[in-house]
Amino acid sequence: MSMRNLKVMMSYNGAAYHGFQRQSNANSIQQTVEEAIAVLTGTNTVINGCSRTDTGVHAREFCFNFKTDSRIPCDGFIKGMNTILPQDIAILSCEEVDDSFHARFDSKGKEYMYKINTAPCRDVFMQNLALHYPYRLDIDKMKSAARLMCGTHDFAAFCKAEAKEHLKDTVRTVYSIDIEQNGDYTDIIVRGNGFLHNMVRIIVGTLIYISEGKRTEQDIIRALETGDRKCAGKTVAPGGLYLNKVLY
Amino acid sequence: MSMRNLKVMMSYNGAAYHGFQRQSNANSIQQTVEEAIAVLTGTNTVINGCSRTDTGVHAREFCFNFKTDSRIPCDGFIKGMNTILPQDIAILSCEEVDDSFHARFDSKGKEYMYKINTAPCRDVFMQNLALHYPYRLDIDKMKSAARLMCGTHDFAAFCKAEAKEHLKDTVRTVYSIDIEQNGDYTDIIVRGNGFLHNMVRIIVGTLIYISEGKRTEQDIIRALETGDRKCAGKTVAPGGLYLNKVLY
Repeated sequence: MSMRNLKVMMSYNGAAYHGFQRQSNANSIQQTVEEAIAVLTGTNTVINGCSRTDTGVHAREFCFNFKTDSRIPCDGFIKGMNTILPQDIAILSCEEVDDSFHARFDSKGKEYMYKINTAPCRDVFMQNLALHYPYRLDIDKMKSAARLMCGTHDFAAFCKAEAKEHLKDTVRTVYSIDIEQNGDYTDIIVRGNGFLHNMVRIIVGTLIYISEGKRTEQDIIRALETGDRKCAGKTVAPGGLYLNKVLY
Repeated sequence: MSMRNLKVMMSYNGAAYHGFQRQSNANSIQQTVEEAIAVLTGTNTVINGCSRTDTGVHAREFCFNFKTDSRIPCDGFIKGMNTILPQDIAILSCEEVDDSFHARFDSKGKEYMYKINTAPCRDVFMQNLALHYPYRLDIDKMKSAARLMCGTHDFAAFCKAEAKEHLKDTVRTVYSIDIEQNGDYTDIIVRGNGFLHNMVRIIVGTLIYISEGKRTEQDIIRALETGDRKCAGKTVAPGGLYLNKVLY
């Protein structure tokens, strides 16, 4: 019998994990999920994640796939996994797909969200789930600056320095940057075909610097032209970042 | 110089605490707050809480007061405390009040909220913050039954058995019970002049049993008439319960 290829969606609260990718010396989402699959199916399995996420970053709809000999039905897989997995990881859906599907290689793009709490006081129910920034944001200035980042650009200035050295190509296409206000919360939603290491967190940090007057639209144009990291803003904390969904 | 009487509002995520009240052998909100005040003012202080809350129960606006010789201004108290306190407790406001004010004795009533997630899958961002009940709730039946509980009744059937033995009087007045649906979440909001131990959690458990057909409106009438705990429903988990506010 041929191996089945299962496409799985999950959400996770990344606060307790050192990111998605398996590491030899730290707790990861990948390892936790692979161990649960091994318990359920009786076979050691490697999953293909759609993306890496950093330490402390969350996912609302993360996609992975894996090949398995197991005949367990998809709804049984969902129920079984949600029983075995810890409460901060949840399997949302599972379907059998064509053998050729690969969660990372077939991704056409991703949507990230960065959540900012602008209330004077921290929100005790959103610990590690939002950046607490207790100041007014100049949304109009941020929206105007965000437009400059949309489109196809060399985003080298919006990439973690150590990561850049290993990359041949730092050109990416940002489809859209939306800024939505909802009470004390401001969500910055970034869609694109692919993202460099820390790219969304540096985009958000740059937009906050724009709001504060620490960077200008000219700085953004210069950052995109020269790749100079100093023209962009700081890297904001990981707890506010969510991988919202993957586009196929 | 006379002692100042400070009235303080705070919110806390109760997941990591054994309730509000100080205990000799367990971590409490009261002890954590009193230790922070001692660090800030240099004096050991006892605070008067508006209420006890159980292990794992949260507060959105909890009131306490305390007497102090400290001359620290109210806004300095807020900032200082929020620096010293852990991230799951936050001071929202502080004001100097009349010497006679007491957070518990002056309370005219309280508002609690119980949060239920009815989505098929657990919400990884609401761990310990809502009851996961992945079924349909019959809101009309629940609203109708809730009306029977409003008003002044003997709520002995809605009280934890061990707590009842120490009480002279189990008559309380419930001002209102509202049931609000918002997407996957159902909030049950209960207002009253005072609450017995576990009373809100048993009211919610009874309303869920009503929805499931495990209890009828006749059972509620009998519970209020006889004080028989078995006529009411189960005690739901503490993580969904929030003390919303105290009325003065």
